Amino acid sequence: MRKSPSSSAFHTPTPEAISQLKELISDATYASLATLSPDEGYPICSRAGMSTLGDGTPIIYVSGLAAHTQALLADPRCSLLVGETGKGDPLTHARATLVCVAAPLSSQGDIYAEARARYLGNHPKAKLYADFADFMYFTLRPIRAHYVAGFGRAYVIDGDTVLGAAV
Amino acid sequence: MRKSPSSSAFHTPTPEAISQLKELISDATYASLATLSPDEGYPICSRAGMSTLGDGTPIIYVSGLAAHTQALLADPRCSLLVGETGKGDPLTHARATLVCVAAPLSSQGDIYAEARARYLGNHPKAKLYADFADFMYFTLRPIRAHYVAGFGRAYVIDGDTVLGAAV
Repeated sequence: MRKSPSSSAFHTPTPEAISQLKELISDATYASLATLSPDEGYPICSRAGMSTLGDGTPIIYVSGLAAHTQALLADPRCSLLVGETGKGDPLTHARATLVCVAAPLSSQGDIYAEARARYLGNHPKAKLYADFADFMYFTLRPIRAHYVAGFGRAYVIDGDTVLGAAV
Repeated sequence: MRKSPSSSAFHTPTPEAISQLKELISDATYASLATLSPDEGYPICSRAGMSTLGDGTPIIYVSGLAAHTQALLADPRCSLLVGETGKGDPLTHARATLVCVAAPLSSQGDIYAEARARYLGNHPKAKLYADFADFMYFTLRPIRAHYVAGFGRAYVIDGDTVLGAAV
């Protein structure tokens, strides 16, 4: 058998890669979300609507009845996969895994109005359930990003850099 | 605040829902994959190419250098989110979370040839790295599926039913 080139090794992030990653996150209106099932500890993948706060922090808006919501309330460790697939080979499209810590947003808190305005700006249809008592926002604070810009171009970028000002 | 309708409650799966779920899985050529990071236990979401064996068991073909591969070798608990997003609101598209147990396929085993033929049938470009020594197949045996057929239509379907003959 042949050996593969070291295509999956991580490279030192360039300013261009960091800038592309920030754009990928701010453009995302939904993501795959991985949470831990409270009963068995399995990693559970689901789809969630997302947006970001002004500083780039991802936010999701989810039903209190949904399994991922119950999972995040029991254990805040999670990750988001962002980057739409579009046409062509989904494995060559830019995508990023954001390893995050989730926190529910209180409707009394300062950030709530910002989160609501920004989420509904991205998801006009969510106005239908924007004020349901059992829906809630979470902030997802990134601690690390794995950014795959394309085949053979992968970067690990720390959470502060993900949220920092664009280069 | 208003209360939401019980839109996220699970319904008893109908034969039609089971049939649609099987089709969704067999049509999938990639998926979001959730694994457990060996170091910290975070649920990590990534993208993987997938196909199925003849009995419907999902298979993935992944680089030994990739984080999800190392994660599955350390802990076989995982899940797949299948169902392409396409046009329109991704939150209204049919999708399914398959809670699975992964097992690496030995290149000496009986199933290997079937897995390779079926995967490469779905992923012609993977022939470029089809025989790299550090790439490997995993079977992902479903123990449970959460199938969201659309808004307000969600089902829990056990793994044997997912793999059984179409109704």
